[in-house]
Amino acid sequence: TQQLLSEPSPEAPRPRPCRVSTADRSVRKGIMAYSLEDLILKVQDTLMLADKPFLLVLEEDGTIVETEEYFQALAGDTVFMVLQKGQKWQPPSEQGTRYQL
Amino acid sequence: TQQLLSEPSPEAPRPRPCRVSTADRSVRKGIMAYSLEDLILKVQDTLMLADKPFLLVLEEDGTIVETEEYFQALAGDTVFMVLQKGQKWQPPSEQGTRYQL
Repeated sequence: TQQLLSEPSPEAPRPRPCRVSTADRSVRKGIMAYSLEDLILKVQDTLMLADKPFLLVLEEDGTIVETEEYFQALAGDTVFMVLQKGQKWQPPSEQGTRYQL
Repeated sequence: TQQLLSEPSPEAPRPRPCRVSTADRSVRKGIMAYSLEDLILKVQDTLMLADKPFLLVLEEDGTIVETEEYFQALAGDTVFMVLQKGQKWQPPSEQGTRYQL
């Protein structure tokens, strides 16, 4: 008897939910991405960065995410931050303090 | 009857997510590494250290990580710090204070 398995193959790429914040934490968007490359393209589009270069870092500590491998190892719903030229990661509390002044 | 086992063998090496910081904590990168040796090679590459010698220490307290065994015992997403010749581990708070001056 022949049997068709309906389970997805482990190789089939599945999109991952990602949250992406601007450097000043004023805007945060939810984006589904199949890969780091896909996320980068969607971030350009969604945050309207045009062709300006940017880095994707972890919002929690500014770790630069630049390899597909590392991207895949991250938990779902990881919060990323976009850093454009001249922008620098800062911890949330410092920014909080700054806003209160 | 022939049976194919789809479980991964326990010996199959799996890469671990690591975060690696420069000594001044200005850059932190996410790197996947199969072993301490692999991490050292990737750090050389990613942080462009060329052939300059360096130590890998724990970012939190400067503990030198030099054996594979100890590396394997660390939790995923451990933060490492690269110390090159003349560089010395410093606690985050001191650096924080320095930046505020």
